[in-house]
Amino acid sequence: MLAQKYIDMLNKKSVIRELSEYAVIRGKEIGYENVFDYTLGNPSVPVPKSYNDSLIRLIGEKSAMDLHGYSQSLGIREVRDAVAKSLSRRFDMDYTLDHIFMTSGAAGAIAHAVRLVTVPGDEVITFAPYFPEYGPYVNHSGAVLKVVPPSTRDFQINFDAFEEMINEKTMAVLVNSPNNPSGIVYSTQTIKRLAQILTDKSREYGHIIYLISDEPYREIVFRDVDAPYIAKYYDATITCYSFSKSLSVPGDRIGYVAINPACPDAEKMIVMCGQISRGIGHNCPSAIIQWAVAENLDITADISVYEKNMNILYDELTALGFEVVKPGGTFYIFPKALEDDAIAFCNKAKEYDFIGVPADSFACPGYFRLAYCIETEKVYRSLEVLRRFVKENY
Amino acid sequence: MLAQKYIDMLNKKSVIRELSEYAVIRGKEIGYENVFDYTLGNPSVPVPKSYNDSLIRLIGEKSAMDLHGYSQSLGIREVRDAVAKSLSRRFDMDYTLDHIFMTSGAAGAIAHAVRLVTVPGDEVITFAPYFPEYGPYVNHSGAVLKVVPPSTRDFQINFDAFEEMINEKTMAVLVNSPNNPSGIVYSTQTIKRLAQILTDKSREYGHIIYLISDEPYREIVFRDVDAPYIAKYYDATITCYSFSKSLSVPGDRIGYVAINPACPDAEKMIVMCGQISRGIGHNCPSAIIQWAVAENLDITADISVYEKNMNILYDELTALGFEVVKPGGTFYIFPKALEDDAIAFCNKAKEYDFIGVPADSFACPGYFRLAYCIETEKVYRSLEVLRRFVKENY
Repeated sequence: MLAQKYIDMLNKKSVIRELSEYAVIRGKEIGYENVFDYTLGNPSVPVPKSYNDSLIRLIGEKSAMDLHGYSQSLGIREVRDAVAKSLSRRFDMDYTLDHIFMTSGAAGAIAHAVRLVTVPGDEVITFAPYFPEYGPYVNHSGAVLKVVPPSTRDFQINFDAFEEMINEKTMAVLVNSPNNPSGIVYSTQTIKRLAQILTDKSREYGHIIYLISDEPYREIVFRDVDAPYIAKYYDATITCYSFSKSLSVPGDRIGYVAINPACPDAEKMIVMCGQISRGIGHNCPSAIIQWAVAENLDITADISVYEKNMNILYDELTALGFEVVKPGGTFYIFPKALEDDAIAFCNKAKEYDFIGVPADSFACPGYFRLAYCIETEKVYRSLEVLRRFVKENY
Repeated sequence: MLAQKYIDMLNKKSVIRELSEYAVIRGKEIGYENVFDYTLGNPSVPVPKSYNDSLIRLIGEKSAMDLHGYSQSLGIREVRDAVAKSLSRRFDMDYTLDHIFMTSGAAGAIAHAVRLVTVPGDEVITFAPYFPEYGPYVNHSGAVLKVVPPSTRDFQINFDAFEEMINEKTMAVLVNSPNNPSGIVYSTQTIKRLAQILTDKSREYGHIIYLISDEPYREIVFRDVDAPYIAKYYDATITCYSFSKSLSVPGDRIGYVAINPACPDAEKMIVMCGQISRGIGHNCPSAIIQWAVAENLDITADISVYEKNMNILYDELTALGFEVVKPGGTFYIFPKALEDDAIAFCNKAKEYDFIGVPADSFACPGYFRLAYCIETEKVYRSLEVLRRFVKENY
């Protein structure tokens, strides 16, 4: 018999995907340049030239066996070593290759991290607003995702609600900073306070509460923003990374798990990841893609455009009277809708071909997300439409 | 707390991997050319030139978004379409893109197939000798792998034992033909009889028993061997494929699930695969690798060397008095050891730097596997060593 769980999922459509599909269809009617499609976090700036250059050179230089033969199941040793060195140098850490496990993107990384530190029935806490895929990522491992309500004042952590929720079954806390969808970066003060609570509660409950830090937007941080490297503040940190956003290569499906060397059993946890892979069919990322990222670890695509787009939107939204916390990074902005029901609000905006995503599925009703990883010229053109929509409706 | 299940797995080392590591270390002592390393199924013939040519051309021609942007979660539509057309043409089937789901190799494919048709506690039956990774592939989904003992006369299916084992909890049967480790191809007669039993039992139990057909060696079939396309004989067949062996690209991690169009709910099962991915962190294969295989579907690496190697080994083994069923495909041969304990036998052979894998972990004690995906010249040189080993010990 077909597994009912997955049939049921088919009926719960993703709001983001539905709106994105609508935008594409609408684009076919009126020209996609006339649809202000802020739905998807698909990076618009192209991959750096050096990345494609690496691919071409590797194909010319490497032997068939090095390029296409089986690679080690934890990731290619030289690649893990290069990742460790880059992280250690940039963030003043002590990673070695024994702390790095290569994955197909952050989804793959989180799938391993959750299984490393939980058994079915254990709880994992995350903070709203949160990326809705955390639901299946955590729940399908058998653990249970619990969500702390948002602190809408600044979108840092709602610590009162967190301290009420944490309990003996809490085995991990899953954070995402810079944050999708709020665009906010957790401050050093926030991370220190979180680390202190986790330290205290780990002692109280007699087991380590792990911090799983999902950081695909780590490199997209705006000027003068306090953006701590999270693992520096808590030993038992499992960092999950994807190169999707920093190098604009989401289709390449490449990322890693990095375990803080100060975490007890850090090296053992990396070899455990190799065992977890066997059960979930994670086949480790393509060797050629591993080699290519290893040559491009310290560069990014031209991500400066995102800060520019953010400033344009932030200024206009505040001028129009929106309540909005200024993003510190990512390519998302997260204003409060002009009516209580953000779904109704977004539906009205849709009539103007201005398409954002209501934040109900991010566990933050009343807000909406704009993904401004689009061309600046189009951001500018969208402002007039936004103004007209607001004027005619509110 | 760290998940004990994966810590326990660390203590159960893979025999294949241990022997392979030994061969590499021994190679450093006496020169790897003097170690007759028959341990690993890592294809020795290089990737076809056209595959690397495709990669280079794609990098030059495709836009950054097409090459590196997010690809559809079921796989790139054009790629799925190309796979469907190739399969339909070659095997006279009616696949369309709606029956194809792209995966990172056969491990990824099987991870989806098992979760599609089982819930925890259900049983999946496979046939010894079998690829030991089927254990974690099935058991970590929550289903239970049951193993039918081998039919050592011909390494076809032991139907009497199978009919005793099948029961109401059996939701799927997992076959691998051409077979790792026996090298045997299931005959049309075998597949027809298996299909008949599955049809009868599905009716008797009131639920479909799915046939999961793991076919990474499908293209490596020797002259005049009867090698049926399994899905043709049973509607509810889920074919799991990897390009690792046919194109010599195991490091690229690319394969697919193909559901027989005649299977009830075939199209729904493909979209269900997309939901399963969300829970196991399967992030779909790299876009560039998908595009490259789509241009190389109907070719293979120069796999003729495997048949040549097989004949050399088969002739020598039979001349030396080994009991051995002649392989019909793959790059494995599976003789009976010259003493009851194949581990002791292989350990003695190891002293001569002739390294095969005892088949206890394939659930077929008393036999051993030689993976002859090595250079023919080395196969020839190994014969004298084999002769000397046999003469001095048996």
